[in-house]
Amino acid sequence: MFRTPICRLARPIVFSAKPIRSSRMITAHAVVFADHGEPCDVLSTHTYEIDENNLDANSILVKTIASPVNASDINQVQGVYPSQPEKTTQLGTEKPSAVGGNEGLFQILKVGASVTKFEEGDWAVPTTVNFGTWRTHAVCSAEDMMKLRNPDQSVASGKKQGLNINQGATISVNLLTAYLMLTHYVQLTPGKDWFIQNGGNSAVGKFASQIGRILGINSLSVIRDRPNLEETVESLKTQYGATQVITEEQNNSRDFGAEVKKWVQETGGDIKLAFNCIGGKSSTAIARKLGKNGLMLTYGGMSFQPVILPTSLHIFKNVTSAGFWMTALLKENPNLKQKTIDQFVEWYEDGKLVDAPSVETKFTGGDLAQVYKDAIANSKDGKQLVVY
Amino acid sequence: MFRTPICRLARPIVFSAKPIRSSRMITAHAVVFADHGEPCDVLSTHTYEIDENNLDANSILVKTIASPVNASDINQVQGVYPSQPEKTTQLGTEKPSAVGGNEGLFQILKVGASVTKFEEGDWAVPTTVNFGTWRTHAVCSAEDMMKLRNPDQSVASGKKQGLNINQGATISVNLLTAYLMLTHYVQLTPGKDWFIQNGGNSAVGKFASQIGRILGINSLSVIRDRPNLEETVESLKTQYGATQVITEEQNNSRDFGAEVKKWVQETGGDIKLAFNCIGGKSSTAIARKLGKNGLMLTYGGMSFQPVILPTSLHIFKNVTSAGFWMTALLKENPNLKQKTIDQFVEWYEDGKLVDAPSVETKFTGGDLAQVYKDAIANSKDGKQLVVY
Repeated sequence: MFRTPICRLARPIVFSAKPIRSSRMITAHAVVFADHGEPCDVLSTHTYEIDENNLDANSILVKTIASPVNASDINQVQGVYPSQPEKTTQLGTEKPSAVGGNEGLFQILKVGASVTKFEEGDWAVPTTVNFGTWRTHAVCSAEDMMKLRNPDQSVASGKKQGLNINQGATISVNLLTAYLMLTHYVQLTPGKDWFIQNGGNSAVGKFASQIGRILGINSLSVIRDRPNLEETVESLKTQYGATQVITEEQNNSRDFGAEVKKWVQETGGDIKLAFNCIGGKSSTAIARKLGKNGLMLTYGGMSFQPVILPTSLHIFKNVTSAGFWMTALLKENPNLKQKTIDQFVEWYEDGKLVDAPSVETKFTGGDLAQVYKDAIANSKDGKQLVVY
Repeated sequence: MFRTPICRLARPIVFSAKPIRSSRMITAHAVVFADHGEPCDVLSTHTYEIDENNLDANSILVKTIASPVNASDINQVQGVYPSQPEKTTQLGTEKPSAVGGNEGLFQILKVGASVTKFEEGDWAVPTTVNFGTWRTHAVCSAEDMMKLRNPDQSVASGKKQGLNINQGATISVNLLTAYLMLTHYVQLTPGKDWFIQNGGNSAVGKFASQIGRILGINSLSVIRDRPNLEETVESLKTQYGATQVITEEQNNSRDFGAEVKKWVQETGGDIKLAFNCIGGKSSTAIARKLGKNGLMLTYGGMSFQPVILPTSLHIFKNVTSAGFWMTALLKENPNLKQKTIDQFVEWYEDGKLVDAPSVETKFTGGDLAQVYKDAIANSKDGKQLVVY
């Protein structure tokens, strides 16, 4: 269903007429699964050798700088995610296996003779999902990676700063989701129009409000009540660019709706988009705030409740409810990612964008699978990033 | 918000330099409401005179052949419907009032000097909603009506038969709803693709399956279980063209889903459209049967439950849920109605379409408002049609 990167084993050295380059072996580790189940049960480390001096002409050898754990990575291992990497024996595993992980930052170590798009030292991220990013190294086609300016290149091109590792390693999923939902579906008028989102304190939520600030689109972020509410609201507004922040209780209150209407009227625009990652009555309440012809995009269901939409919103306000799945969208529009990621790099370089912090674990050798198993177990404490 | 027909009082006869035609008065009755509330409380008969010999150049005088009671007419009187006729004193009512009803069949009695689009004896239906069809006569602009071939005209043009009164009087709402939902949104491949609908035994449901049969689109109609189930299924299939009919219980059964999949696979198509007029779990169950990228249109909410959509349908199957409101669609696309109604007349003339039966009441004089109040009270027994 999805394009799978062609990862090759080091070729056995055979005697042939053509001159054989001296082999130089790298020991690589990859976190693989042959069967679906709970990550702690099915993930294991596969260790194998890569000959860095015997690359195919169109191949590249990369080493991993960092790769995070996303919820969809876990669902993929569990077998409850519709997009799955192909399981093969290409890495030399006994049973056909796949490498976990979909997002990550890589550095080019070596390029094949015909590769012009990369140089050694370049940074790169996978072109598509299902690359398998929980690994120390990979050999793949140059087409399977897209270039990212590394910090030296940013500075050399006159920028004050380049990407940090967390920014590069988490540029492909949440940021891209926020950007595409905000820009790909509805024409919003800067300075006037609004979007509303539940999960306003999530990584996607923070990116969406920041992108809103950059593009001049007003945002109304809904968050759960919490002990440090004022502080969170303040941070979402000043640091992450939210125009207004309300609680789920305010979101559900019909009376408070008048306040929201006032804010929107003051800008002379309308709430034209809603992003739902929660479902249930939270989805109902943000949909109710949409103006006529509004669109709600659902990209998650954290409450495990379905999307609930009053009939009258559909019929008399022409509100439409649709889904957002980046995997499917990028499959249909493969150029969107490169174009978008170039934009993100610029925003990071210019200090316009703040990355969502990750909890970092340094891999210093040992059982790589255990490092990701621990990270998965700790995911409740925040986004986990394994740095190599 | 909506174009209101210009209905005029008979002009007072004034002495002027131009020759005065002799006046010939018609006594007209209209069912009006000045305030919103329960129809039995707020509807009353207003009686007034129309001078048929003093029409404006662009006006026409029509008499009503028949007009039905639709659910939305009742909601309009109650004040719970978003589209409302303007209340005026143009008919000579003491308080600004509106005439009830939105659908009806009329006959042209007289045309103004500049009117070329109608001749006396033509049949016509209102161009837009909010005409006020619960009345014996109306004077309006020629633009407010669109022509329908009357039975004599049909026979004269070589057709075996013309419209009957019920067909003409109910051509504007349910039939149009079914046709537009089936043809205006999604490209369906004849012989292969399917639509699914709950409310399969409703007037819209029966029209939709019939139009499906004419256009070669397969239909899966969901109906409630009932004592005469087999008979109803048989009638929906043979008389009303449904390809398959299932009960709500089967609709909700995951096991039965396999049977539905088999039917769809046999045609080599997909279920691309769903029509929901019920909501709640019935809407969930028909949405689940949609194929990838399917669209559900909601046009009613008979269960008073909201539309409920599992998150995964949105995200991973890219199912979209939208509303259908004919009033808004025709406002945006005013030509759709004339084009479509011409097609319906042909289908009726050719015997391809069967009308949904109405319970007819003949108005023979007396209190017209009471006739409609009784019809509203009897609406539970079937669609009510007042014939003049």
